[in-house]
Amino acid sequence: MSAPAQKTAISPTRAEDFPEWYQQVVRAADLAENSDVRGCMVIKPWGFGMWENIQRHLDRMFKDTGHRNAYFPLLIPLGYFEKEAAHVEGFAKECAVVTHHRLEIGPDGKMRPAPSAELTEPLVIRPTSETIIGASFSRWVQSYRDLPVLINQWCNVLRWEMRTRLFLRTAEFLWQEGHTVHETSEEAVAEANQMLRVYQIFSEEFLAIPVYAGEKSESERFPGAVSTLTVEAMMQDRKAVQAGTSHFLGQNFAKASNIRYLSREGTQEYGWTTSWGASTRLVGTVIMTHGDDDGVILPPRIAPSQVVILPVIQKAEHRSTVLEAADDLAAEIRNQRYAKEPVTVEVDKRDVGGGVKNWDWIKRGVPIRLELGPRDLEKGTVAIARRDRPFKEKAFRPVEEVVKGIPGILSEIQAGLYQRAKELRDQYTVRIDSKADFYDLFTPKNAERPEIHGGFAFAHWSGDPAVEAQIKDDLKVTIRCIPTDPAFKDETPGKCIFTGAPSPRRVLFGKAY
Amino acid sequence: MSAPAQKTAISPTRAEDFPEWYQQVVRAADLAENSDVRGCMVIKPWGFGMWENIQRHLDRMFKDTGHRNAYFPLLIPLGYFEKEAAHVEGFAKECAVVTHHRLEIGPDGKMRPAPSAELTEPLVIRPTSETIIGASFSRWVQSYRDLPVLINQWCNVLRWEMRTRLFLRTAEFLWQEGHTVHETSEEAVAEANQMLRVYQIFSEEFLAIPVYAGEKSESERFPGAVSTLTVEAMMQDRKAVQAGTSHFLGQNFAKASNIRYLSREGTQEYGWTTSWGASTRLVGTVIMTHGDDDGVILPPRIAPSQVVILPVIQKAEHRSTVLEAADDLAAEIRNQRYAKEPVTVEVDKRDVGGGVKNWDWIKRGVPIRLELGPRDLEKGTVAIARRDRPFKEKAFRPVEEVVKGIPGILSEIQAGLYQRAKELRDQYTVRIDSKADFYDLFTPKNAERPEIHGGFAFAHWSGDPAVEAQIKDDLKVTIRCIPTDPAFKDETPGKCIFTGAPSPRRVLFGKAY
Repeated sequence: MSAPAQKTAISPTRAEDFPEWYQQVVRAADLAENSDVRGCMVIKPWGFGMWENIQRHLDRMFKDTGHRNAYFPLLIPLGYFEKEAAHVEGFAKECAVVTHHRLEIGPDGKMRPAPSAELTEPLVIRPTSETIIGASFSRWVQSYRDLPVLINQWCNVLRWEMRTRLFLRTAEFLWQEGHTVHETSEEAVAEANQMLRVYQIFSEEFLAIPVYAGEKSESERFPGAVSTLTVEAMMQDRKAVQAGTSHFLGQNFAKASNIRYLSREGTQEYGWTTSWGASTRLVGTVIMTHGDDDGVILPPRIAPSQVVILPVIQKAEHRSTVLEAADDLAAEIRNQRYAKEPVTVEVDKRDVGGGVKNWDWIKRGVPIRLELGPRDLEKGTVAIARRDRPFKEKAFRPVEEVVKGIPGILSEIQAGLYQRAKELRDQYTVRIDSKADFYDLFTPKNAERPEIHGGFAFAHWSGDPAVEAQIKDDLKVTIRCIPTDPAFKDETPGKCIFTGAPSPRRVLFGKAY
Repeated sequence: MSAPAQKTAISPTRAEDFPEWYQQVVRAADLAENSDVRGCMVIKPWGFGMWENIQRHLDRMFKDTGHRNAYFPLLIPLGYFEKEAAHVEGFAKECAVVTHHRLEIGPDGKMRPAPSAELTEPLVIRPTSETIIGASFSRWVQSYRDLPVLINQWCNVLRWEMRTRLFLRTAEFLWQEGHTVHETSEEAVAEANQMLRVYQIFSEEFLAIPVYAGEKSESERFPGAVSTLTVEAMMQDRKAVQAGTSHFLGQNFAKASNIRYLSREGTQEYGWTTSWGASTRLVGTVIMTHGDDDGVILPPRIAPSQVVILPVIQKAEHRSTVLEAADDLAAEIRNQRYAKEPVTVEVDKRDVGGGVKNWDWIKRGVPIRLELGPRDLEKGTVAIARRDRPFKEKAFRPVEEVVKGIPGILSEIQAGLYQRAKELRDQYTVRIDSKADFYDLFTPKNAERPEIHGGFAFAHWSGDPAVEAQIKDDLKVTIRCIPTDPAFKDETPGKCIFTGAPSPRRVLFGKAY
């Protein structure tokens, strides 16, 4: 019970040191840990439970838009990978390469890759699957009747990273990658737009994270894409996270993989392809958007459990009665429905003190905590606490009222988290009209807190990549997107604030994870 | 429409050439295909749909028995892998090894692994995760209060194979691996038994495949295990497939990974661990158990769609009316429930001929096919056909009767497939009491059909591994299991039919995939 004695459960606080706060929250909430394998994380059950819910809901949305899941090889022949020049250039530096297919005991008595089992062509662990899936698509697509091909894959990918951070940037991560082929450019563009919209809806409705939707500038495009669309979220440290991207690939990969079809006119044509993905990075995004100085705060729609019941047992003689009542209460709660699904609940029966238990669940961010002890059983009450309210706000209420009230409270929490995140984002998104103001916005005012800056800026930019490079170099600021969302795009022409050249519209700038 | 003109949709038939029949069925049913990466398959949407249902139901059973999912690194440091001697010996020959973390352009202008990016310690792609998960468990487990640890992981694994066969034996495959730690040997043994029971129930109730449950002999044990439990199914060619295994690992891996806990008595003790797994091999098992000479026959509980609606459109003017009616019918069918879930249905709107469509779905094994044309709309009827009946058996019935009848028919199909599989298995499982009869049972009678043999044999064996080796050498026959299922175990003592030595019980012999 040391936690309640502290000012906050997590130290340092967000205001003191946001990056370190993040690491401490991930640890305190039991979400993930580093492994001994460079850059590869272990996702613990509570963190994986978030990912399972993200998967489940996104998967439903993908299926509702006509996509089906499939699975393609982990390993990509080097020859495939080389076919699209921009693509290989973009990923070559981060590829893990398999060169042998057997171990043996070497002359020093230690295990080593067997020299006699060296592969004639090395294999690359997929950093993304355009090329390996393209090889299948070239077999699957023969005629316009085979189109569109609408496929999704849930899998692990690997991009060797030197500096990693749990969930946000790891060498191996889990994701989904959609891959589609279409008869026309227009259909492929419509698909890429549709899937961006899916990511936006998912982010806002399930993760309770508002996003700016738009297109990446050329320098930030996916290697090999014609255009990359993105949804960008603002974290509490005012930095941006890309929460999902959707690429229109033109005919680049169709040509590289020879995806051709017999058209309605009887000619051979290359297909038009898209790809789109979201990853376990979303788990980190949720933490950094909603967490507070006591730990994670989970949006109910992706919480592994929406309610936890904490049996209060001070005397051994009460144990079985209280646990039984807790199980009964759990069963009643499971009969309630929130967002068209049964409410999820677990009973923490661990043999540890009540204070420790309570703080464990505060740190893990479970939306609703219920305490149930012998006195409650006598009175027919239960103590209820909400994670979006101060931890001391605990109310004793009749059991039936609590049970019936749970779906409403979950709705309130979900909506409240979105609202709070949106207010923060709107507060720190500003229109900037001069280079001086721009540099001021992104320059830390306190040398000890170099991560603190002003937020996102909507400003005019002529489209010149040299300007982008300069800003990135000076301030680590990038163009997050050229907004396409009617709610935000501002296509009033103006002048680039850096060069004075004519600018067709404002674009969104920010520092990014 | 070439298929109906043939005698059967699949050629060769099962009786003509079972192994080739299998390959042809996998292709004709659009389940999977080979990739250019040695031994790695592409699982196509219809095959992956089977796997998704297998995953969904097994996952529910794992959670109902208290397990939670987590995720551990794909790559294992060589040093971890070496810690358990029997384990590394068992897997060293099939390990894919990562030695570099970057590609570069070599002096010949071609991509190669960058020599400057060679890893100091090679990494092995997981063939199974005992050692990498053990490293986490050694951190997670400190006190008896932390036990049991009940974890499952859904992932891909890789075991380099020279001879592969889609689903049955591939280098990369998808599976789940359960890993648990317990306070006592008894609890770990109980867990291993419980999970074997889960596999048995799953196999019988969902896959409609009867299995023999039992323990492996020492020579067939998982490398590093104290005991390996298995469920063994008989395919239509009378060969065995291991449909799930569950291992009691004793303290072997706990010692290798240093998984220790403070006991109730205040002493430091090693934990007792188990692991258990089932894989995409189950998809192949379903095909070989239930398929016929027209293709796959899917048990309704794992069919990606339980019903397909085939709109019959001979004139373009009928198209929109018929498609609309088909969508309405689909919606009505989705309101029906089978096995506590909505019935799954899809409408095949492809622009191809009716005969081709019908045969595509016969080959894919969808349990129920419905045909709906303009004449049906006039009469209020629909034509219904069942995959477990001859394809010509098509009945026209009033729409409402068909819709209401679907759950009952699905139940009948599920039960009928199990019954048929059980009859075949029982017919070809025999008790053998002499070596001569044993050799006769397993010796092919026709040189052109070396795969045909008598089936499974229950026979006495003293426990001598030399006998096992001899039989394997002579006949490719192995001990599938020492039955533990009360329905089958026969512990009447006898004499080993090979050596005459005393035998405590009969064991199950068979040829295996």
